[in-house]
Amino acid sequence: MSLTIKVHIASYLNLDLHANNKVVTCANYNTKIRPRPIYSSNPVIITTFKPKMLADHSPSAPIRSSLIDPDGGTLVDLVVPETQRASKVFEAESLPKVQLAKIDLEWVHVLSEGWTSPLKGFMRENEYLQSLHFNSLRMKDGSLVNMSLPIVLAIDDETKGRIGSSSHVALVAPHGDCVAILRSIEIYKHNKEERIARTWGTTAPGLPYVDEVITPAGNWLIGGDLEVLKPIKHNDGLDNYRLSPKQLRREFDRRKADAVFAFQLRNPVHNGHALLMNDTRKRLLEMGYKNPILLLHPLGGFTKADDVPLDVRMEQHSKVLEDGVLDPETTIVAIFPSPMHYAGPTEVQWHAKARINAGANFYIVGRDPAGMSHPTEKRDLYDPDHGKKVLSMAPGLEKLNILPFRVAAYDTVEKKMAFFDPTRANEFLFISGTKMRTYARNRENPPDGFMCPGGWNVLVKYYESLQAQEPSQRPAVFST
Amino acid sequence: MSLTIKVHIASYLNLDLHANNKVVTCANYNTKIRPRPIYSSNPVIITTFKPKMLADHSPSAPIRSSLIDPDGGTLVDLVVPETQRASKVFEAESLPKVQLAKIDLEWVHVLSEGWTSPLKGFMRENEYLQSLHFNSLRMKDGSLVNMSLPIVLAIDDETKGRIGSSSHVALVAPHGDCVAILRSIEIYKHNKEERIARTWGTTAPGLPYVDEVITPAGNWLIGGDLEVLKPIKHNDGLDNYRLSPKQLRREFDRRKADAVFAFQLRNPVHNGHALLMNDTRKRLLEMGYKNPILLLHPLGGFTKADDVPLDVRMEQHSKVLEDGVLDPETTIVAIFPSPMHYAGPTEVQWHAKARINAGANFYIVGRDPAGMSHPTEKRDLYDPDHGKKVLSMAPGLEKLNILPFRVAAYDTVEKKMAFFDPTRANEFLFISGTKMRTYARNRENPPDGFMCPGGWNVLVKYYESLQAQEPSQRPAVFST
Repeated sequence: MSLTIKVHIASYLNLDLHANNKVVTCANYNTKIRPRPIYSSNPVIITTFKPKMLADHSPSAPIRSSLIDPDGGTLVDLVVPETQRASKVFEAESLPKVQLAKIDLEWVHVLSEGWTSPLKGFMRENEYLQSLHFNSLRMKDGSLVNMSLPIVLAIDDETKGRIGSSSHVALVAPHGDCVAILRSIEIYKHNKEERIARTWGTTAPGLPYVDEVITPAGNWLIGGDLEVLKPIKHNDGLDNYRLSPKQLRREFDRRKADAVFAFQLRNPVHNGHALLMNDTRKRLLEMGYKNPILLLHPLGGFTKADDVPLDVRMEQHSKVLEDGVLDPETTIVAIFPSPMHYAGPTEVQWHAKARINAGANFYIVGRDPAGMSHPTEKRDLYDPDHGKKVLSMAPGLEKLNILPFRVAAYDTVEKKMAFFDPTRANEFLFISGTKMRTYARNRENPPDGFMCPGGWNVLVKYYESLQAQEPSQRPAVFST
Repeated sequence: MSLTIKVHIASYLNLDLHANNKVVTCANYNTKIRPRPIYSSNPVIITTFKPKMLADHSPSAPIRSSLIDPDGGTLVDLVVPETQRASKVFEAESLPKVQLAKIDLEWVHVLSEGWTSPLKGFMRENEYLQSLHFNSLRMKDGSLVNMSLPIVLAIDDETKGRIGSSSHVALVAPHGDCVAILRSIEIYKHNKEERIARTWGTTAPGLPYVDEVITPAGNWLIGGDLEVLKPIKHNDGLDNYRLSPKQLRREFDRRKADAVFAFQLRNPVHNGHALLMNDTRKRLLEMGYKNPILLLHPLGGFTKADDVPLDVRMEQHSKVLEDGVLDPETTIVAIFPSPMHYAGPTEVQWHAKARINAGANFYIVGRDPAGMSHPTEKRDLYDPDHGKKVLSMAPGLEKLNILPFRVAAYDTVEKKMAFFDPTRANEFLFISGTKMRTYARNRENPPDGFMCPGGWNVLVKYYESLQAQEPSQRPAVFST
């Protein structure tokens, strides 16, 4: 039996789900989001739900290997087969070299595993322009895939000169090894001002990715087809958490997931997050899914200096599972290897699109995703509601179920994290990421029930270790 | 007989046209433009060519009323029927008033006649966000129409306060008359910095539209459904040239056009432009079209202070037709009522999209369309090739035939404007709009054959009249 579930995003007031004309109302999702595109009052999100198949293990009714197709239909894998490695390494040594910065290597990692499918390497100019102007790429068949961030490699005049008329170059990691070949290259102008303005919607100084990556970069971009010589490893003790989209898809199959809901984060998990993730699972069960799996998916690449480092966050996430706040049986914790842009509505599309490629068919989006404070003005850089609105309208994301959520806050009466109730607003306390970090830095305890004690302890220890360091070794603290 | 012509934009090197497997090569078009979207090597532009129908006047084979459908399928007309006018005027008087600036009224004009189809009024937030992030709007059926510029109306805090909880407002022209009702309004934040950055790709001070319109505007945008009380007239002696999309479509039918090629301009027509327009007509005839009509379509709304004013340009264009440089039999001169943004690749999409709505199925695009000098740096604001590249890839413009052209320059050997030949580059002289204006301003003659004498004389007289004015009355001259 195959049952089609249509989600009427047009009536976002509550997330109504129509299954065989039976309406299941999920009242806990965000009540503020507007209808999907203005012109669309029709059902726009469709997922195929096959409840019988889970119980039926006969070979004729196998679990589908994928709940959602990767963009472009095929998951891109740019790591060269082992049989060809020696000859490619030999070839790479003979090519002009392009030196990668640490964050360039993070993008090589991301590209190599197909998070960016259908991209086959750093963008050439026609991909760059489509990304910059339309946040999408057109496929041969005329369909669009989402591609909101320019995924590009910059080089300087000197490197361009050295490349000369060569068609291919070798990419050299910061540690000195050749890690990849970029083939059939195209070199084009890197107009930094335009790239920054169109990606962030501001050119104000102080954007972390701009300061770290773009400002120091060269005035040329180099695109081409990427061949990665061997899988990228970080050797930081966390590589086992760096599951590729292919590995994640296999794991969802192994667990016989019939729905996967992804949660992107770059902060420690507090009980508000947990409430929301557990609530989402409950709602999916109510919709008729039998085995929804949570992909708890912390971002593992570049983050700004005052964010909590990855190793600390991973330890904190482990404690949250150990303490039983999230159920390990229905949760997969893995690292999303992308760097952060802090580009709000533009970046949240990338976060969602990459999870399509990893096999997640539901994506949870909250207030001000990928946002930060304006670097020079006293306000949020983005309207906190724009992220989920833009996400719900973005070309190429139609096949993904977007789950906006209501804000969770600390209920001072119930003494726990709860969905914010505007009728008794003054009984709620909002604890931002900045506030949470300030508590931990000052060794103050947050209110009871804000975070499980094991998780909180990890943060306290981290900030103690920072304070034990010489001031010069401490990360700079941004004004967020 | 119906014959399908497929234009292989992928091989842009020459504009190859395949008609029943016979390849017609149009070598005079631009040789630099890259393939359409990266993923598309297939034919992407298709137009249906019906040569027999022109000769056949039997009722069973009428001339099609339209060569290209308006965006959204139906041409929007927001002027209220005369029978309802009195009651609407009466209602408008009772509504909260929103005062329009001159350029706001230009947009009311543009919206009212359906240049912006399928828009039915100033953008609400979901349209604004789609325009800003994706340069397109999604329709009910999932298809996209192009919409690259935010077409919005700003109000200040005081006006927002006066509107209160009213659902509708009346729009008041600078001369004091109520000209329209905006219904079912939505008021949302006007983040000027983000709007400017995403539209222009810079936030540098000195962008003419920003200085004139956005900086002085309020911090709120008001969207809604527009009802225009009567057709907008300028009463400047040029209203007869302001043909609406409906009137243009009728005129193309009356002339039995089987192809319409639009040429957008905001400068006087020199012989290089004429060469290109005449050459395009020749190519269309070679393709098999029997009656291609040129829409010479000067922009009539706001332009920057050092551009030549509309009335002078219209007089100059008349002389060009009188002098026989362009053929009046196959040319329609009309005014495009939109204001200029000078937003390069973003704006050229608007220029092309509006001409779809006016019934043109071919659009000519040149070097650096809608571009200008960077307001604070010594360089072009946009890469001169980006306009035509972005246009060829823009969502929602697939049905329009984009005709990029080679640069025309003054051939000092042949003593005429000719397509630039890079093999004898030093025999060509480039005369930019700025240079042309400088010649005229300084009463110097341009080289023989640059412009027809009648047309040149109009410009000389205009600059003489400027110099006769008090310095304080002269328009400010930008650094372009």
